Amino acid sequence: MSLLVTGSLGIDTVITPHGKADEVLGGSAVYFALAARKFTEVRLVGVVGEDFPQEMRSVLESAGIDLAGLETRKGSKTFRWTGKYTEDMNDRDTLAVELNVLAEVGASVPPSFADSDVVFLANTHPAAQRQLRSEVPNARLTVCDTMDLWIETAREELAETLKVVDGLIINDAESLQFTGRKNVIDAGYALLDAGLKFVVVKKGEHGSVLVAPSSLTAIPAFPTRAVVDPTGAGDSFAGGMLGYLAGEDVHDDAALRRGLIRGTVAASFTIEDFSMGKILSISRDEVEERVHRMCRMLRID
Amino acid sequence: MSLLVTGSLGIDTVITPHGKADEVLGGSAVYFALAARKFTEVRLVGVVGEDFPQEMRSVLESAGIDLAGLETRKGSKTFRWTGKYTEDMNDRDTLAVELNVLAEVGASVPPSFADSDVVFLANTHPAAQRQLRSEVPNARLTVCDTMDLWIETAREELAETLKVVDGLIINDAESLQFTGRKNVIDAGYALLDAGLKFVVVKKGEHGSVLVAPSSLTAIPAFPTRAVVDPTGAGDSFAGGMLGYLAGEDVHDDAALRRGLIRGTVAASFTIEDFSMGKILSISRDEVEERVHRMCRMLRID
Repeated sequence: MSLLVTGSLGIDTVITPHGKADEVLGGSAVYFALAARKFTEVRLVGVVGEDFPQEMRSVLESAGIDLAGLETRKGSKTFRWTGKYTEDMNDRDTLAVELNVLAEVGASVPPSFADSDVVFLANTHPAAQRQLRSEVPNARLTVCDTMDLWIETAREELAETLKVVDGLIINDAESLQFTGRKNVIDAGYALLDAGLKFVVVKKGEHGSVLVAPSSLTAIPAFPTRAVVDPTGAGDSFAGGMLGYLAGEDVHDDAALRRGLIRGTVAASFTIEDFSMGKILSISRDEVEERVHRMCRMLRID
Repeated sequence: MSLLVTGSLGIDTVITPHGKADEVLGGSAVYFALAARKFTEVRLVGVVGEDFPQEMRSVLESAGIDLAGLETRKGSKTFRWTGKYTEDMNDRDTLAVELNVLAEVGASVPPSFADSDVVFLANTHPAAQRQLRSEVPNARLTVCDTMDLWIETAREELAETLKVVDGLIINDAESLQFTGRKNVIDAGYALLDAGLKFVVVKKGEHGSVLVAPSSLTAIPAFPTRAVVDPTGAGDSFAGGMLGYLAGEDVHDDAALRRGLIRGTVAASFTIEDFSMGKILSISRDEVEERVHRMCRMLRID
């Protein structure tokens, strides 16, 4: 089945206690696509500027990502972000951001991608997400992300977007911000009431919670001492989860729970190196081995 | 097998967003004992003042806790604590504390308890923990807790205590404080190096991590929307875990992992009401049912 991701591609500069990565490949759609690619074929929709380096494009091509939806906009520049993580890597400061092409009109889904089955609408303005959703009319499973900015500035638009997707993958602070609840499980159920079939609340190093009408699942993050750069963990999580689900015929609670493990494992690889260093270098077998370890760790009788 | 707990008994006043409980039964040894009692018989060692109400004593007696080690000290008053939780219940302020009898010489293990098999040394000065440890010379399994105060003021004493116990159950902030590490898994391994056979790092609503030489297990908290009062969660956790282990012949990694689930479930009941309201009222069957649900939630293939 075909998996489509819409989102950003960017050039990141990242500083963590483990070092600095200068002008490396980043962006939500990229982290998603390379994680999802461990499980299935991936179509990418996004926009970069003329300055987007050929080496970065080659990284995506070599990984087998379908770039028919990647627009290189004349006269525009690629999104750039510079961030620095705190000592414990649980927080980060944005030191510089140049929206560039992301401040212009968004990407659109090319006709050849319109038949996509599973769609992830990475974070962007909720009205743009709704437009993109309408360009993939027959998707069996559509999931979106969002961010604090839209919860503050485009709350009604976001509420409308939640009505045209099946699932939401959101971080803990944003789930509380949107719902006004004090705990993420409450927030998850409040979001279901907004018209969703399932909600995943991401808690970073503390794992995630899947809230679906007939089941509630909390799992930890994959325990690791090897965190180098947390950037992209959330998008890799979504990529692992939806990459897995794109290969499944049925998206019932059991499948969502198996997807949750794949997302957790995908994120655990991403954070072991800067940029796409780790997620690119690991094999499908290494992913499956860690999935197996995670399931074994959680199996307690 | 016989399970012994040494620790505090107190009279608590607790304010949470759900209400206020005035002068209710509290204390580490009490939370531990009533949780452990769901799994095994429990011997309690502690000291109260002459003012300790008969109704509180009756609660413990009715639950079948062996109070042969409970000293009622003439001329002394019982420990009292008043605390108020923040809106999200992840933090609390101590509004008033009267150490009273806890500022005097500690309890000692009566000869009839000296043959105890499994021992939990709840938080107190590490030198006092070591003294108590020496009074139960043949214990098969000894576990302690500690707190930030002793890490600051009695670090060397605490390091000595860790050499005479098998396991440590500690909260996340304290594990980082003692080891100087930035993540709790690192901290857990650093604590193993201090001479322990296993370490459990408690992360409150985010679950716990068990670090043992041949295994690493992270599990979430039991997902719940019903938190009324978090007081005693950590001691109930220890009580559930060690109460279970006291009934096991072998304390290998598999048994520790099963204990981790029981601890998690015991804590999940305690926080559903003020004081001992919930943990007292539930049956062994209700505990087992929740253990079963927790294991099923975590079983993902």
